Amino acid sequence: MNENLIDKLVECLDANRVLTGDALQERYTHIWKMDQGLVAQAYVLPKTTAEVSDILQLCHSHNQPVQIFGGLTNLVGGTETHPDDIVISMEKMNFIEEINIHDRTMRVQGGVVLQNIQQLASDHALLFPLNFGAKGSAQIGGIISSNAGGLRVFRYGMTRNLVLGLEVVLADGTIINCLKSLIKDNSGYDLKHIFIGSEGTLGIVTRAVLRLQEAPKSRVSAMVALQDYDNVVGLLKHLDRGMAGLLSGFELMWNNFYTMATSAPSQSKPPLEQSYKYYVLCEVMGSDQVADTNKLYTLIEEALDRRLVEDAVFAENSSDLEWFWTIREDVHACVSQLSFDQHFDISLPTAKIGQTLDDVGKNLKATTGVVNFVTFGHIADGNVHIVVGKSNDSKELTHTINTIVYEPLKEIGGSISAEHGIGEHKKAYLSYSRSEAELNLMKTLKHALDPRSILNRGKIVD
Amino acid sequence: MNENLIDKLVECLDANRVLTGDALQERYTHIWKMDQGLVAQAYVLPKTTAEVSDILQLCHSHNQPVQIFGGLTNLVGGTETHPDDIVISMEKMNFIEEINIHDRTMRVQGGVVLQNIQQLASDHALLFPLNFGAKGSAQIGGIISSNAGGLRVFRYGMTRNLVLGLEVVLADGTIINCLKSLIKDNSGYDLKHIFIGSEGTLGIVTRAVLRLQEAPKSRVSAMVALQDYDNVVGLLKHLDRGMAGLLSGFELMWNNFYTMATSAPSQSKPPLEQSYKYYVLCEVMGSDQVADTNKLYTLIEEALDRRLVEDAVFAENSSDLEWFWTIREDVHACVSQLSFDQHFDISLPTAKIGQTLDDVGKNLKATTGVVNFVTFGHIADGNVHIVVGKSNDSKELTHTINTIVYEPLKEIGGSISAEHGIGEHKKAYLSYSRSEAELNLMKTLKHALDPRSILNRGKIVD
Repeated sequence: MNENLIDKLVECLDANRVLTGDALQERYTHIWKMDQGLVAQAYVLPKTTAEVSDILQLCHSHNQPVQIFGGLTNLVGGTETHPDDIVISMEKMNFIEEINIHDRTMRVQGGVVLQNIQQLASDHALLFPLNFGAKGSAQIGGIISSNAGGLRVFRYGMTRNLVLGLEVVLADGTIINCLKSLIKDNSGYDLKHIFIGSEGTLGIVTRAVLRLQEAPKSRVSAMVALQDYDNVVGLLKHLDRGMAGLLSGFELMWNNFYTMATSAPSQSKPPLEQSYKYYVLCEVMGSDQVADTNKLYTLIEEALDRRLVEDAVFAENSSDLEWFWTIREDVHACVSQLSFDQHFDISLPTAKIGQTLDDVGKNLKATTGVVNFVTFGHIADGNVHIVVGKSNDSKELTHTINTIVYEPLKEIGGSISAEHGIGEHKKAYLSYSRSEAELNLMKTLKHALDPRSILNRGKIVD
Repeated sequence: MNENLIDKLVECLDANRVLTGDALQERYTHIWKMDQGLVAQAYVLPKTTAEVSDILQLCHSHNQPVQIFGGLTNLVGGTETHPDDIVISMEKMNFIEEINIHDRTMRVQGGVVLQNIQQLASDHALLFPLNFGAKGSAQIGGIISSNAGGLRVFRYGMTRNLVLGLEVVLADGTIINCLKSLIKDNSGYDLKHIFIGSEGTLGIVTRAVLRLQEAPKSRVSAMVALQDYDNVVGLLKHLDRGMAGLLSGFELMWNNFYTMATSAPSQSKPPLEQSYKYYVLCEVMGSDQVADTNKLYTLIEEALDRRLVEDAVFAENSSDLEWFWTIREDVHACVSQLSFDQHFDISLPTAKIGQTLDDVGKNLKATTGVVNFVTFGHIADGNVHIVVGKSNDSKELTHTINTIVYEPLKEIGGSISAEHGIGEHKKAYLSYSRSEAELNLMKTLKHALDPRSILNRGKIVD
């Protein structure tokens, strides 16, 4: 342990915000591993950007690797720690500094939890469109650092599109303040985009200005069944054109997912028969519940007439809405039925998903050790999730399955990570979606911004 | 002249695509300076990415500065040349490689003109939402490099938001191929964002994958008059909430602009009396002409009742549409009435525009040498354009006026360039919107990616 550095950190913060020894062991390392103690030298809790800057200046001058902790909801080993690390936790930087209802913006510290942002926006009849399962734990700094996606990306964009301004502290403690609340700003390089999605390897997000939308007044959902993937693509085009910008959700479930999610032990009943190949849960958010419902109803009737769609059911009230969306969102109901579950988060051009996933499915079925799997996704974004259940947890089987899923992506321009990031877990597979030249350029950037490689060492690039 | 390098360039390309001497002089340097010959050593015309790579490899090894030419429609000295430069013109890389109507994407070379992209999309009932005056000349490579904005940014985003994939050649000739057509891709750093908006100082855009939208089926416009800036902000919120995502234009004209644009020698008549302080031209694009018209009509009636709006007129047919939009878009009708016109393209938080521009206006009026000025802008994006007419073209007066406009931006977090960029003309004023730390980080990036500073030397950063 570097006692000298720890002493200096205690000088910077209070002693009660520099945890070591037993106090450190009480901290968990991951939302899914709360029984394990934390492996690290120390755990520090800054309250301000200036404190983050002081901490990094010290660590930089001591060549001290740091690991940044947000809500620890990432799924890719993005916050794994090592015995040498000092952990910088953002949990005390949880202050919402301002909401501006005229400019529709919110300025927040990096440690604010997503749900609190959503709630404050909603209290002012505004919407922060980003939404995903871990919203009660995920912190905005980590969300921005990992450019999180979720359920409404197709309409509102990834996190990147929702961030107007950013404050970041570089590895050497330099504070980069790009905290403007402007939709248009071409005054030189737009530096914030370097940090968004870099998983904390280039800087620590300390504050941000978020763009809010006026809250929609209507929400309409319908579940439809289809037999052919080309019809899924055709339906997306049909609804998207017909709604002209109001379509906010288009979630595809393969039969394997739908059946498992609507059979015991799952609590949900099936709103449509379990005999179809595909199910789409679509959502419209607009300004008029009656008019928007009629519009979606007419469009789906047309789709039934054209035999794009085999069967359809509308959410007629809020309990239907919850019923339909629980089927799609309660992934845990499926995962709990799979052993040694292995998760995928790939993306590929939407029109190529049907055939590609058919092929992947055949290869998975032919693999010894694969018991079953479920497939679903944010299909309008080209994003597919697969969860594979296995008979054992061997590294060989894991690697075999990774290769089955990732190999086809290379040729068709897909991605091994649509929204979860790379962290430590997917680093070995990056070359399936990125070229040697791209990886070298990532290293050039890392070296230029963090020459001593102290920030989240070992994540994404070496 | 570096004869050795020129010979090598001729080896790479054909002799007829390496222009020097008289052939060079026949090339114009800027759309507004077509009478001047081109100041440069040579002018080369690659047809492929590989040729761009070969050219840059050669220039890099010879420490040879290059200036990239697109459609030359930038307004900030972004394509000024110097006697030592070799110009790389993208005009022969004008091939549209693919349109995909299912994935709603288009893959193009960097030299394709915007209007051709819009037209091909439209031919397939799709929309490439980017739109601005220079669409008949501006090339997509330059558009991406300068992250162009325009009239519908509020709804569809800047160019950055419309680019899914990018191919770039670095200063040393390395080809970075990020040509994926994915909405979601978090497989490592999203490198394309480094190049978008960097005005060609970090790499040359050779190809891109663009995101298209389904073409809207309706377009409704209305012009309204207001007396108070707070009501402008209130109207924006009222319409935006009421249309829930379908509002596509919200253009503000100050009285000075509106009066000049609707009085002789301008051909346009005023649709509303010239006695109001502000005029907003709003636009909705949706799926149903009748329903969307009724909706906007109801919202504007409510705004009249609430006295947000003083008077209003709807475009009842396509000739009204053209009439209203010509008033807003034919900036030349105003500029031609101003001597020694000096142009501004600033942005600031929307709610602060009224007071700030009142103050700027007072200071301009009190300045000897200022004859008159007009003010207008994409106000939902916080983007204001000012054109100042002057009695002389002295550097002192230009600087005085720049200072009047830029000075207030510093404190309120505004930008000296919302959508036009920095080039050479605005470089001296960058510190009004960017901090020392930001400028240093820009230099770090420039040095990391173009260590010999051969790309668009002298633009943005030194």
